[in-house]
Amino acid sequence: MIYITRRETFAASHRLYRPELSDEENYKLFGKCSNPNGHGHNYTIEITVAGEVDPYTGFVLDLKKLKEIIQNEIIIHVDHKNLNVDTQFMKGIIPTSENICIALWKQLEDKIPNGKLFSIKLYETENNYFEYRG
Amino acid sequence: MIYITRRETFAASHRLYRPELSDEENYKLFGKCSNPNGHGHNYTIEITVAGEVDPYTGFVLDLKKLKEIIQNEIIIHVDHKNLNVDTQFMKGIIPTSENICIALWKQLEDKIPNGKLFSIKLYETENNYFEYRG
Amino acid sequence: MIYITRRETFAASHRLYRPELSDEENYKLFGKCSNPNGHGHNYTIEITVAGEVDPYTGFVLDLKKLKEIIQNEIIIHVDHKNLNVDTQFMKGIIPTSENICIALWKQLEDKIPNGKLFSIKLYETENNYFEYRG
Amino acid sequence: MIYITRRETFAASHRLYRPELSDEENYKLFGKCSNPNGHGHNYTIEITVAGEVDPYTGFVLDLKKLKEIIQNEIIIHVDHKNLNVDTQFMKGIIPTSENICIALWKQLEDKIPNGKLFSIKLYETENNYFEYRG
Amino acid sequence: MIYITRRETFAASHRLYRPELSDEENYKLFGKCSNPNGHGHNYTIEITVAGEVDPYTGFVLDLKKLKEIIQNEIIIHVDHKNLNVDTQFMKGIIPTSENICIALWKQLEDKIPNGKLFSIKLYETENNYFEYRG
Amino acid sequence: MIYITRRETFAASHRLYRPELSDEENYKLFGKCSNPNGHGHNYTIEITVAGEVDPYTGFVLDLKKLKEIIQNEIIIHVDHKNLNVDTQFMKGIIPTSENICIALWKQLEDKIPNGKLFSIKLYETENNYFEYRG
Repeated sequence: MIYITRRETFAASHRLYRPELSDEENYKLFGKCSNPNGHGHNYTIEITVAGEVDPYTGFVLDLKKLKEIIQNEIIIHVDHKNLNVDTQFMKGIIPTSENICIALWKQLEDKIPNGKLFSIKLYETENNYFEYRG
Repeated sequence: MIYITRRETFAASHRLYRPELSDEENYKLFGKCSNPNGHGHNYTIEITVAGEVDPYTGFVLDLKKLKEIIQNEIIIHVDHKNLNVDTQFMKGIIPTSENICIALWKQLEDKIPNGKLFSIKLYETENNYFEYRG
Repeated sequence: MIYITRRETFAASHRLYRPELSDEENYKLFGKCSNPNGHGHNYTIEITVAGEVDPYTGFVLDLKKLKEIIQNEIIIHVDHKNLNVDTQFMKGIIPTSENICIALWKQLEDKIPNGKLFSIKLYETENNYFEYRG
Repeated sequence: MIYITRRETFAASHRLYRPELSDEENYKLFGKCSNPNGHGHNYTIEITVAGEVDPYTGFVLDLKKLKEIIQNEIIIHVDHKNLNVDTQFMKGIIPTSENICIALWKQLEDKIPNGKLFSIKLYETENNYFEYRG
Repeated sequence: MIYITRRETFAASHRLYRPELSDEENYKLFGKCSNPNGHGHNYTIEITVAGEVDPYTGFVLDLKKLKEIIQNEIIIHVDHKNLNVDTQFMKGIIPTSENICIALWKQLEDKIPNGKLFSIKLYETENNYFEYRG
Repeated sequence: MIYITRRETFAASHRLYRPELSDEENYKLFGKCSNPNGHGHNYTIEITVAGEVDPYTGFVLDLKKLKEIIQNEIIIHVDHKNLNVDTQFMKGIIPTSENICIALWKQLEDKIPNGKLFSIKLYETENNYFEYRG
């Protein structure tokens, strides 16, 4: 079994809040991440697929294809977007890094051509990262 | 002459657009950075001060003080903020990285206790950075 | 289950030696890390907590609180300190990276407000890192 | 149980191809990695050993020795080399990152003086990495 | 004056040698970089352009255009290539990092749409980099 | 003119203080860097030499030689050392990063075989760096 990881980045804005709460209540719950006009990040994601090596090619899967899948299923929906408003697959979900990880997993889970999706890692800043393994 | 650099980061959202233009016209001019609902970045800044070494302390200036000044003059105004709406010193300025550099220079220029402000460097992503030397 | 990691850094000095051995014997055992006057590192730690996402907030735990706990239980005891002399929780322990990992685990194990401590990772240099999972 | 990781780098060239195929067929299978005159990378490897801490030294193993073993078993065979032609332990193997990981595992598996080899991680670029755990 | 830098990477192989010398003589002059079958690197380049900010857009130049120019003038000629054989603009030039910098400068010098080419920086490894300013 | 930079690292401890002052007075002047038992850093240095390219080799200078000179003139005196006590060329000098830069310049200035020493850059942490150009 080999674990292959592809790293990509995207730049997005978001706001953490519950719509039924006041700004003060949201600040209590989400701190400065609840700023009403939003803020943003350069997110880095690491997508790991686990699979066996094809003895003919020496590949688990063609990384060019994995890159295209990540591009089409994730990047075009989140890069230079507002995650609260623009991203269909985040609709109705508070865009915490925890929830983004789970949403990205759902986007990719059935699309991996060889091997199986093993892990989604998301770096929100250089000091905070999150991982989901399904 | 010694050049001292302090690195800090902040997370902000922004939108590049001119209000008198349509979304289509703004897209033509600013590309995906004109997304109407905004997007964001983890910005990294490097503030460089040039000065002479005090023979008694071996310091050009106390980095703790420089850090405080950067905190008060820059970080609290931009971190977890929307640069188009929340940041007083960016009012009326299109928040391109070029313009942010110049605005940060103006914020700091007269506040350096020892030595002189030499350079403002701003990393918008890991692939794009900008520098202003006054 | 989501794995959340917080990264922090601290600057410390240490010396690897057993007090009952001569300098030559310590050098044989610990190499240049036994230098009698000590040496130091910028240590980086990555603290990983595993837990379930609260559906109301989308958080496993409030990272601001995790950061405070790491600050109070670890950073103030080791940052700008001599690990052999200044750090209470390292008393009587040779401050190898292996032992530091285990000591940090003991400091944090019972303090995590939500989820469970999963891993302590310690980078001694850019080329050597150590992990402990309890 | 402590996991110790040593990071090393090497610079090598390679070509991905099957000798019985034409250049066009190889391009279909391996893309630009099949360029007939080769290309190259700064590879980074992370070798992880798992073991228990010796209470006398506080070490799992002497990292200087691990470094020497990696140097002798791996680095001298691949650094500033052509992996298709110069590296004995890659003979007859397509030098994909997957296959390099497995070959490095075989080189090291029986050479670890204390603890057990746990993982071989290989970064081909800053965006693609591969891991093998035996 | 603002300095804008775009960072790109490419993976290439090369060999340092003079064709009129024997392998031994080349080894004396170029060390392990003269390995007859070549070796390779992940090169990182940083292209810096200096210019004035257009008050209408807040841009010195459109980074998307700069990226395209670097792609067409540099990357397609060197990425996944052998610099001694495949790269037209390196023909007859020993592909040392010094000479690559100068060749990249010539490729780009007249192609910058706004502002002027200020610097070419090339990282051969994480420990060695080279800069040329014309 | 080409600027060549070699990056090296070393791990050292130090204490910032003036011997004639009390611990309280030193704390006032140097903050936590005055901790009586010292602390330490993984220092990174970048040594830049400026010179012209030799048309026969395509080199400004042999980087292997530059590496040896840095090793002999700097690294063996500071790596795994206490800068206040162990390092001959820092005797009587408060080991601030400013003063270390100047001392490293003096160590190297006359030893560069081709080209001229252009800059000494010293990273004390990932957030603070210092440069001296003579």
